[in-house]
Amino acid sequence: MGIELQNHQSHHEEAGPTEEPISRWLINTPEPPSMWQELAGYIRTNVLAKKKHRRNNTKNSSSNPVYSCLKSVFPILSWGRQYKLNFFKKDLMAGLTLASLCIPQSIGYANLAGLDPEYGLYTSVVPPLIYSTMGTSRELAIGPVAVVSLLLSSMVRDIQDPVTDPIAYRKIVFTVTFFAGALGFLVDFLSHAALVGFMAGAAIVIGLQQLKGLFGLSHFTNKTDVVSVVSSVFHSLHHPWQPLNFVIGSAFLIFILLARFIGKRNKKLFWIPAMAPLISVVLATLIVYLTNAETRGVKIVKHIKPGFNQLSVNQLQFKSPHLGQIAKIGLISAIIALTEAIAVGRSFATIKGYRLDGNKEMMAMGFMNIAGSLSSCYVATGSFSRTAVNFSAGCETVVSNIVMAITVMISLEVLTRFLYFTPTAILASIILSALPGLIDVSSALHIWKLDKLDFLVLIAAFFGVLFASVEIGLLLAVGISFARIMLSSIRPNIEALGRLSKTDIFGDINQYPMANKTPGLLTLRISSPLLCFANANFIRDRILNSVREVEEEENEQEVTKENGLQVVILDMSYVMGVDTSGVVALEELHQELASNDIRLVVASPRWRVLHKWKRAKLDEKLKSENIYMTVGEAVDVYVRARSTSHDLC
Amino acid sequence: MGIELQNHQSHHEEAGPTEEPISRWLINTPEPPSMWQELAGYIRTNVLAKKKHRRNNTKNSSSNPVYSCLKSVFPILSWGRQYKLNFFKKDLMAGLTLASLCIPQSIGYANLAGLDPEYGLYTSVVPPLIYSTMGTSRELAIGPVAVVSLLLSSMVRDIQDPVTDPIAYRKIVFTVTFFAGALGFLVDFLSHAALVGFMAGAAIVIGLQQLKGLFGLSHFTNKTDVVSVVSSVFHSLHHPWQPLNFVIGSAFLIFILLARFIGKRNKKLFWIPAMAPLISVVLATLIVYLTNAETRGVKIVKHIKPGFNQLSVNQLQFKSPHLGQIAKIGLISAIIALTEAIAVGRSFATIKGYRLDGNKEMMAMGFMNIAGSLSSCYVATGSFSRTAVNFSAGCETVVSNIVMAITVMISLEVLTRFLYFTPTAILASIILSALPGLIDVSSALHIWKLDKLDFLVLIAAFFGVLFASVEIGLLLAVGISFARIMLSSIRPNIEALGRLSKTDIFGDINQYPMANKTPGLLTLRISSPLLCFANANFIRDRILNSVREVEEEENEQEVTKENGLQVVILDMSYVMGVDTSGVVALEELHQELASNDIRLVVASPRWRVLHKWKRAKLDEKLKSENIYMTVGEAVDVYVRARSTSHDLC
Repeated sequence: MGIELQNHQSHHEEAGPTEEPISRWLINTPEPPSMWQELAGYIRTNVLAKKKHRRNNTKNSSSNPVYSCLKSVFPILSWGRQYKLNFFKKDLMAGLTLASLCIPQSIGYANLAGLDPEYGLYTSVVPPLIYSTMGTSRELAIGPVAVVSLLLSSMVRDIQDPVTDPIAYRKIVFTVTFFAGALGFLVDFLSHAALVGFMAGAAIVIGLQQLKGLFGLSHFTNKTDVVSVVSSVFHSLHHPWQPLNFVIGSAFLIFILLARFIGKRNKKLFWIPAMAPLISVVLATLIVYLTNAETRGVKIVKHIKPGFNQLSVNQLQFKSPHLGQIAKIGLISAIIALTEAIAVGRSFATIKGYRLDGNKEMMAMGFMNIAGSLSSCYVATGSFSRTAVNFSAGCETVVSNIVMAITVMISLEVLTRFLYFTPTAILASIILSALPGLIDVSSALHIWKLDKLDFLVLIAAFFGVLFASVEIGLLLAVGISFARIMLSSIRPNIEALGRLSKTDIFGDINQYPMANKTPGLLTLRISSPLLCFANANFIRDRILNSVREVEEEENEQEVTKENGLQVVILDMSYVMGVDTSGVVALEELHQELASNDIRLVVASPRWRVLHKWKRAKLDEKLKSENIYMTVGEAVDVYVRARSTSHDLC
Repeated sequence: MGIELQNHQSHHEEAGPTEEPISRWLINTPEPPSMWQELAGYIRTNVLAKKKHRRNNTKNSSSNPVYSCLKSVFPILSWGRQYKLNFFKKDLMAGLTLASLCIPQSIGYANLAGLDPEYGLYTSVVPPLIYSTMGTSRELAIGPVAVVSLLLSSMVRDIQDPVTDPIAYRKIVFTVTFFAGALGFLVDFLSHAALVGFMAGAAIVIGLQQLKGLFGLSHFTNKTDVVSVVSSVFHSLHHPWQPLNFVIGSAFLIFILLARFIGKRNKKLFWIPAMAPLISVVLATLIVYLTNAETRGVKIVKHIKPGFNQLSVNQLQFKSPHLGQIAKIGLISAIIALTEAIAVGRSFATIKGYRLDGNKEMMAMGFMNIAGSLSSCYVATGSFSRTAVNFSAGCETVVSNIVMAITVMISLEVLTRFLYFTPTAILASIILSALPGLIDVSSALHIWKLDKLDFLVLIAAFFGVLFASVEIGLLLAVGISFARIMLSSIRPNIEALGRLSKTDIFGDINQYPMANKTPGLLTLRISSPLLCFANANFIRDRILNSVREVEEEENEQEVTKENGLQVVILDMSYVMGVDTSGVVALEELHQELASNDIRLVVASPRWRVLHKWKRAKLDEKLKSENIYMTVGEAVDVYVRARSTSHDLC
């Protein structure tokens, strides 16, 4: 080595009058908490934190801990006290509008889910009631939704055919609903891009499946991909089919779309598109009833069981041999349902300027689905189309959900007999009319502009759902999203750093082309939070390659050994943790560089990393004079040592 | 807001005489490379790099690019020129010693893999020859190994039973070998800890399975877990069994272990333990032949097909309905085989002071297994026990592997007739004697001391293999390892920072308890390389919780609003990338803080992050005067603005 790098009381420019080098601070930090202490700390901050950090609106009142705990679980206890009569007027109107849209949609979605119509209505009763006590959104309209209904029917069908044994099928659906509630805390796994792609794909698939109802076809494929559905439609059209179904369905579809057009033109007429589905149902049912059209091939809903929700506790299938698969379907439904609901709720909360509490939402939706599974409901969540109607109708609080649930409950008693003659084609039209809202082209464009990889996720989800299956579409999207996260960990960037002139800042020389390199020094930064088995060899090889490149350049320029590369400064400030492979890789790097007469200097290693080195006795090999607090300090020491040795020459 | 934070020409302490604030540099960085440019760059550095960075030993010669490319693929062309006669003397001795150990081991391992004995010998011919031309290790002894043999038989057995149709079984094994070669580049997925645990578990399983041979049992379980094997041994012992097998097997096991004891006592007698297995085979075979012991129940090897390796190209089953499963077994074998071989090769390379080239090793092993699959070999890799013998025997280069391969080839012609009478119990003894080397207690202890989570991975692999199956053990280990990486990404740390007195350094206040907080400021750092869908909500909530905690503390201490929290400085230097969810989360954070009269200031955002904000127009909302180059700059500006406003008061 040409130059001796000693830790000779290196005053950092800013270290002031103290004689002690600042890297002493680094070496003498306290022992980091052990794994158990950390785990305990994690539980303390994440599980018990809610109590501590909850904001008391009325600061000195309610010192009762039980009551304040109840208030945190049931936000209705907080805002219920300030509820006013003129709020209720608005909520009542919104709730009634909501119910008029909800009743036909619920029947249609139950049909899509492979269940009898009454189960859709049940799902619009219990879950909204539970949500209204626990949720934090003011606009979210709870109930069955199209995408989750499709998801359920396409996945549960693999376990049990709904046609051959509808009772067994229903039991499995309830069990899935239970799991969807119990596993609801595992969200955050679907990116916004994946959701946009998935919803668009699902909307198209659902739309194609409605052709069955619209054409009144009897034979239809169980698969959900576009190719199977389209070919099934073509096959069926060769058989005799009933044009009357199509006439009724498309006539009312046009009516609903017209109503929506009017609603869009004049925002005050929002109730026209909201009421249109119910009006269509009533009109179509009357027409069929009066003309006896059911005898001329028009398919009708037939019997709907009247009465309230029934208990379904004893129908849950926890001893089923397919329990694993059932839990998986529950998990997938929960992820889709919650991600959608929170996205919808959040976007309306932003408009009104309040904040949705993600954790409380998760808990509310979990409980409402568990309660639903015990009372003959299937998976409920926040519906996009109904939430928009609720918002336009001027709802103030979730009381509109309560109004809606009670209205549906009453209609379950009163209306079911009337719905006997409702043509199924009208249900198809109602579902079809709700689908365009699920295809969010502007979001897709925004994602394309912002992040190409996110767009790839979107496209994968979209085409996966369209051409393979719901499951594969989701798997693709989640797989690509997580592969990206993994990739940033297993193939991290190694940045070359340079000093920004006249400052003590060292920046990536790609980001700051004006940054200066110090001759004789190579300053590199590992930009990964972990130095572990999955990237340790890669990082070591990349650093050695960088050194080799510099040496080759020096060879070409015929730099003398004395002026050549002498020190590699490794900025480890980003590396939060290291495992055994990481320690070994650093040891090898140190050895390899030493065998080439290059000294390895480590700058700003983190707490845990440093203490692990101490345990592995790596700090003895590296020697503590090769560990510095900052890159700046390490560079300064080197430059000073070099100039001293040049002076001596 | 009490204080106006303007970007009024903030001179950083060290910014020197220039009037321009340094954060201008940040805003005016060049556009980062697009995804395509990055991809091209990645390919350039990672695929084509080898050519550029290869070091020419003879600098001015060999300007021929084809020859230099060949040299990089076949290192033998480089070192072969300097090969000397006295190297060969040593390699010849080492090679012969190796062969004497390799022949009995190969027969035993083939038996373990469910194949006829000659296939073990074949595997000791072609792969070592290929490896010797392409590998970079000088000591690694190539051939069949115990753990991979167990792996193959336990996993291929699920597709095809070796007893009912050995030819079909063999075909699948060759196809697996092909995939093990073709998929060999996908290593780096098994941590050292997982390997240690897996090998120890596998050694115990293999040892228990040898009880079958040692006791001469006929009925034996196909499962590999301890419970099945032990109960199978007990069941079998109730049936009549042949004690002569046990006598021969355990007598020679004692002989081999004694020989090893002598070899350990005196390092010069290393050849005694190396020769002991071959001597045992010869002696045992002679004893059986002379005493006709095979008529008294001693199980013997019987027919071994004489002759060299035969082509097996037409036996590869690429049209098998189980192709996916076959590829999976190939991948698992490759991961285990390569991780073991590279670990073994690296440890001996470190002793001799040279460096193994991981990429070349991967390529060499890939090619040797593909070539092996075409010439009746099964998966070969570097054997731990034989590499140690090779090293002790003083090998200089991989020529010892060539000598070994030729010796095995000759014995395939000459010896096979003689091996007819070899008792199978002796093979069990030879396998058993090699197992203790696979159980690495000192590594396990080292891992326990260093990293508890790595030790958990080790334990999971160990007990998984022992009590469930080889596959589950591996899955557990890989799963836990990757869950840890994922967890650091989806639940990153949010560190509170403080200034180290009299410096410009901001450190984690847990690591540096002496760091000072600036009143009125909260400085936080996101320690995750990605701000994305999987952690964006978590990070936003954690930051808001920290703000709330500070506010509650202030409330308790009755701090006036003017002296309370006014600015949150978010250090984003660690965040290398951001996706659409990340942009939205930051936007929400900005809004939420603004609604509480707190200003969000971002310090040192990275290149890509900044440019993505520009595209999302987030920088307009945040306003560029709230973006600073460093935390220090942001704090200084705040402190100066505050003191100015106090002066005005």
